[in-house]
This record gives sequence, C-alpha cells and structure tokens, in this order.
Amino acid sequence: MGLFTKDIKTLNDLFVHTLRDIYYAEQQIAKNLPDMISKATDPSLKSGFETHLGETKGQISRLEQVFQMHGVEAQGVDCPAIDGILEEASEVAGEVDDKGVLDAALIAAAQAVEHYEITRYGTLIAWANMLGRDDCASVLQRNLDEGKATDEKLNKMALSSVNRKAA
Amino acid sequence: MGLFTKDIKTLNDLFVHTLRDIYYAEQQIAKNLPDMISKATDPSLKSGFETHLGETKGQISRLEQVFQMHGVEAQGVDCPAIDGILEEASEVAGEVDDKGVLDAALIAAAQAVEHYEITRYGTLIAWANMLGRDDCASVLQRNLDEGKATDEKLNKMALSSVNRKAA
Repeated sequence: MGLFTKDIKTLNDLFVHTLRDIYYAEQQIAKNLPDMISKATDPSLKSGFETHLGETKGQISRLEQVFQMHGVEAQGVDCPAIDGILEEASEVAGEVDDKGVLDAALIAAAQAVEHYEITRYGTLIAWANMLGRDDCASVLQRNLDEGKATDEKLNKMALSSVNRKAA
Repeated sequence: MGLFTKDIKTLNDLFVHTLRDIYYAEQQIAKNLPDMISKATDPSLKSGFETHLGETKGQISRLEQVFQMHGVEAQGVDCPAIDGILEEASEVAGEVDDKGVLDAALIAAAQAVEHYEITRYGTLIAWANMLGRDDCASVLQRNLDEGKATDEKLNKMALSSVNRKAA
C-alpha cells in the first residue's frame, strides 16, 4: 500500500489488508518464539511456548489457505503494532535480573501477543461474514479459538505457579 | 530504566514498570482519541469515542491513585507496543478512501487498543494480588472492567451497523 495514496476503497480491500497484517504478525511471532523458549526457565512455560510455536506455524498455513480461498496473493504488509509489542517484550526481558521474574515478564509478553491475535481475528471473522465469505470466516475462527485457548493456558500457568515463584 | 542495566530485580519492580507502561499508553490513547473522533462518521461511533475519551481520563486518574497507594512516583515509560498499535491505526486510516470503510477501520483500531489495555490490566491485577496489594488490584479491576465493556460496545456497534454500511 502506498503511503500517500488511498488504496483501501472497499471493505474487501480492508479485509485483505488486515489479513496481510496478521500474516506478517504471525511470521514475526514465529521468529521471536525460539528466543522466548530459550529465555523461559519454568519447564511448563518452556514447553507451552514450544507448543505455541507449532500452533503458530499451523495458523500461518491456515492464513495461506484463506488467501487462496479468497483468490489473493499470500503476502505480508508492515505491521507496526506487532513490531512494537515484540520490541517491548524484548526490551523488558532484557532488563529483568531474576529467572522467576523473567518468566512472569515472558508470560505477560506472550499474553499481549495473544490479545493482538484475538482482536485481529475477531475483526477479520466479522468482516468475512459481512462479505459473504463464511468459508474464510470458519478457517479464521480456528485461529481465534487457538489464540483464546493459549491466552487461557498462559493465565493458568501464571496464577498456578509462575507468579508465585516470581514473588 | 537503563537499556544496558538490569533494573528489574523483583516482581514489584516489574509491577511498577508495567504500571508506568500502561500509564504512558493511556496518555497516548487520550492524545489520539480526538483525531479518531474527528474521523468517525457514524454518529453512534463518534459519540462512543467521545465517551471513551472521558473514560480514558478517568483511567489515568485511577492509575495515579494506584501509584500513590503503592508509594511510587506516577510517571510513564516508553511503550513501543502502544506506539505501534496507534501508528498502525493512523497509517491504515490514512489509506482508506470511503467514510463507511473508514468507520470499520476505526472500530478495528479501537478494539486493538482495548485489547492492549485488557491484557496489561489483567497482568497487573494478578501481580498486585501476588504482592499482597489487593487495594491496588481492586482499582485496576475497574479499568479492566471498563476496557472489556468498551470492547463489547465496539463489537456490537460493528455488527449492528458499521460493518453493514461499509460493505
């Protein structure tokens, strides 16, 4: 999309733009997860992040399926939102001087990432339905459901053990 | 916080850092809302954003109350996450060439902002409870409840009218 042109003329254009935004975002998340896995100390958190990396790759494949169903090229667009969320995660992690506290910071960062996915998939599903693309909506729904489930799992991990070890 | 020092040594340090992160974020949101109000066309969306600006100012006051209760200075820290989310909102809005579609894009942007608030307040409340600061947690809970209610209101607005006008 050009910076000085108004390339988004229809809801369909906005849908495709946002699909490309989350496609880029998921790829950045997949790139950043190995670093989070290596920093995590709590074994359940480490293995949770490993599972999440596998799920993220599956979510990327589903997005490629949606691009194909919708007849547009699978490509990313810049997404300053996820860049900022991941930059902040890395900055904060770099300032933490205790393994238990670092685990708590990593969970918070991962939940911020999940909430970004949740909001974008929620929007994309509503737009897909409005555009008569219930087929695309149902594939995107699987990514949304996984994002919500991951957020819930992280919540439980934080409350049951990680925050206690950090305190 | 210094970039090359590890200033976060305890869960309390992390709590204060994240409190400062959301304090900066809420201030940026308050600065950006007038622009979103002026861009919105749908009257219910415009008035929804106006209400939200008032609520955001109230949330900033509650954060100042939490800083005071916790005995630390009310100040912000850089928050690349909210900067990225707001930068993306402004970039996308600048590319939309239709008032109905722009309203749909503005709702999506506002929901991304709400989800950032929801994830941060959820984390802060869990940490406040772990630190024995149930008093801080209950003030933060009011901000979380407002964020969730706003997200739900935006959802209803999108599904009941704005997306239809955009399609």
